[in-house]
Amino acid sequence: MLRIADKIKKLGTETAFAVSAEAAAFAAKGNKVYPFHIGDMNFSTPSTVVNGTIKAIHDGKTGYCPTTGIPQLREAIADDINAARGTNYSIENVAVQPGGKPTIGKFILALVNPGEEVLYPNPGYPIYESQIEFNGAVAVPYTFVEGKNNFVFDIDAIKEKITAKTKVIILNDLHNPSGAEFSKKDLEALAAVAIEHDLIVLSDEAYFDIRYEGKSISIASVPGMQERTVILYSFSKRFAMTGWRLGATIAPKEIIDVIAKLNVNDESCSNHFIQYGAIEGLRGDQTEVKKILSVLKERRDAGVQILNSIRGVNCFNPNATFYLFPNVTELMKNKGFSDYELFRKDILHNTGVSFCTRIHFGRPLPGEKNYYIRIAYSGINLNELTEGLNKFKDYINSPDEKTVSKKSVLSLSHL
Amino acid sequence: MLRIADKIKKLGTETAFAVSAEAAAFAAKGNKVYPFHIGDMNFSTPSTVVNGTIKAIHDGKTGYCPTTGIPQLREAIADDINAARGTNYSIENVAVQPGGKPTIGKFILALVNPGEEVLYPNPGYPIYESQIEFNGAVAVPYTFVEGKNNFVFDIDAIKEKITAKTKVIILNDLHNPSGAEFSKKDLEALAAVAIEHDLIVLSDEAYFDIRYEGKSISIASVPGMQERTVILYSFSKRFAMTGWRLGATIAPKEIIDVIAKLNVNDESCSNHFIQYGAIEGLRGDQTEVKKILSVLKERRDAGVQILNSIRGVNCFNPNATFYLFPNVTELMKNKGFSDYELFRKDILHNTGVSFCTRIHFGRPLPGEKNYYIRIAYSGINLNELTEGLNKFKDYINSPDEKTVSKKSVLSLSHL
Repeated sequence: MLRIADKIKKLGTETAFAVSAEAAAFAAKGNKVYPFHIGDMNFSTPSTVVNGTIKAIHDGKTGYCPTTGIPQLREAIADDINAARGTNYSIENVAVQPGGKPTIGKFILALVNPGEEVLYPNPGYPIYESQIEFNGAVAVPYTFVEGKNNFVFDIDAIKEKITAKTKVIILNDLHNPSGAEFSKKDLEALAAVAIEHDLIVLSDEAYFDIRYEGKSISIASVPGMQERTVILYSFSKRFAMTGWRLGATIAPKEIIDVIAKLNVNDESCSNHFIQYGAIEGLRGDQTEVKKILSVLKERRDAGVQILNSIRGVNCFNPNATFYLFPNVTELMKNKGFSDYELFRKDILHNTGVSFCTRIHFGRPLPGEKNYYIRIAYSGINLNELTEGLNKFKDYINSPDEKTVSKKSVLSLSHL
Repeated sequence: MLRIADKIKKLGTETAFAVSAEAAAFAAKGNKVYPFHIGDMNFSTPSTVVNGTIKAIHDGKTGYCPTTGIPQLREAIADDINAARGTNYSIENVAVQPGGKPTIGKFILALVNPGEEVLYPNPGYPIYESQIEFNGAVAVPYTFVEGKNNFVFDIDAIKEKITAKTKVIILNDLHNPSGAEFSKKDLEALAAVAIEHDLIVLSDEAYFDIRYEGKSISIASVPGMQERTVILYSFSKRFAMTGWRLGATIAPKEIIDVIAKLNVNDESCSNHFIQYGAIEGLRGDQTEVKKILSVLKERRDAGVQILNSIRGVNCFNPNATFYLFPNVTELMKNKGFSDYELFRKDILHNTGVSFCTRIHFGRPLPGEKNYYIRIAYSGINLNELTEGLNKFKDYINSPDEKTVSKKSVLSLSHL
């Protein structure tokens, strides 16, 4: 009777939620769980945002607001982006959204016809692949390789994937899950490719401000790119506002006008009063925002150190994001695992350490030889992080079961 | 260069926003404007909701929550619906949404294939027509006629529109803009039609609780209908929460599972802490909620009385919604108007009274003979409402310009 629309078959999801559910079920049985599987944050939202929001509720900012957001917030976002990226955006280039994510689907709807090709990073945020395919476009993955100090994108490999049908390219510099980063030279090379082939770029900059060393660069700042770039901007990570749902689409006016029409059709507007809080977050005192970064950095350093001390693990130390993406190929081989899910569950059930693996970030590509897991350190305190990863280490570095059994027998025979 | 996707051409909008902009521009020139054009509300959100929300912020409910909402709210919504509608929903039938509106697009995406036909009310909320056509389905309008005391839907006319391609029917009992209402007998007849033709019903119940006399009925309560009805549920009107963006989709589990997947792809989840406030709104003291209704009722009664005293106006007194939809055919004829927009602008510029007309609620149908305007009384206080509508009355009921000129000449000749 309930015939669901055919198109729904093409809709993907975030399989990471299944990992969360499994971890929760394991914890509910009385087990200690170390949550490295989710990109949620165990930080308080800065008081600037909280106080600004509560004031706005009391000021009666509880009715509808414009579909692209209140002008003051749009201006504050444009100012923030221009200051950090050296761009030249104004209020007409900003459409406020209920989160960072809505920009992905709306970008595809606004710019891609069915049958056109979209280049996207894989491994990568799984919603890219899902929204591309759900909307009838062709998802063409590009990947990255291990460089000297971090994962790097291979511009030549990306170029090779471009065809006459390629319409847009999705970029997630400061990359989830890998922490991969384009160099300025890479970004310029990619910009040249985009201009040559008349491609529009979606630049997912959700982690632009989650940076510990150096300075983030947006492809929008490369000459000739502001007019062909759509920035996914989010308050979620920088202000520990994941559950507030606030972000924005930054784009040429012509695209913002389409996005605004999609907003009218999809949700009318974003929450009104939170937008006043967000202005306080952007314009107000940054002490608490900086504190979040320094706590994350401590976690990153401890995580990288312990992971690299585990037999068969090789982990980069990325400058940005709150993820680590260790290569566990040798570890899994040593332990006799060739299946990601069996490995993940084994570690969860033997150590309580819960993480996602490469398979939670897009369909694996043919010929992949290396195995990776993703360690998110945004939702776990330093003590727990250290305790959990050390349990993982002890479990892996301990003699294998056969040896243990032998030892046990020996011990037993001594009694 | 910026080639927008072809599909965007099929995307409609809410043309009422243009009316708001025009009214704002007129007011900015120093003119007094009486805002009858928008369904926004000039009421404070009840303190139960406000306090529950602020407490949740302080309790740290600021991270992600489940994509279908927190279980406690889903349960509270199911309880509320069952109590008011006599249905039998449980938590698995509820997916929280960022507003009432998101259910419309997600319903079409979940259930309708391109080329299939969707019956929808016209005049009606313009997003129905837009989302149907944007998603490649065929929008088949049904309308309503003037009954004795209110607009009524014509079940036989609806039946005639059903073909082999009809997949779903959109119902907006307690109807925006007209206030039209199905009788229990009508709903049962429509349910029989839906069951006979295996149709799924979207029941937009945004105004279910904005009711002054009698009791609202949901088609979901008709035997055999709960398993084929999707309810659009909203906190916006009942709790004066339009700018908060909170609502829910209520449906059979099989549909909720699809809606949940759409939520994951579109916005991850609705705002987390507001959901705690909403629970307090539903479960807490209802004094302020009742007060909103009694104030609205006063406005309705005054509005209907004045409108019916205007020459050439005939206005029903609907039991529900906060809209009046007077027939102004004779008035417009008397004043020589055959164009809605010229009429609307004339009234705005001569009286400050700003309203939407029939053309803001879907494409007019062939053969329409009557003219209607929509008077929203949710955003204007009783004093202003009375003052504004009386100005409208004085402007219309005054002798026509020719007469005025003659009189002026006479007066002048007396000096």
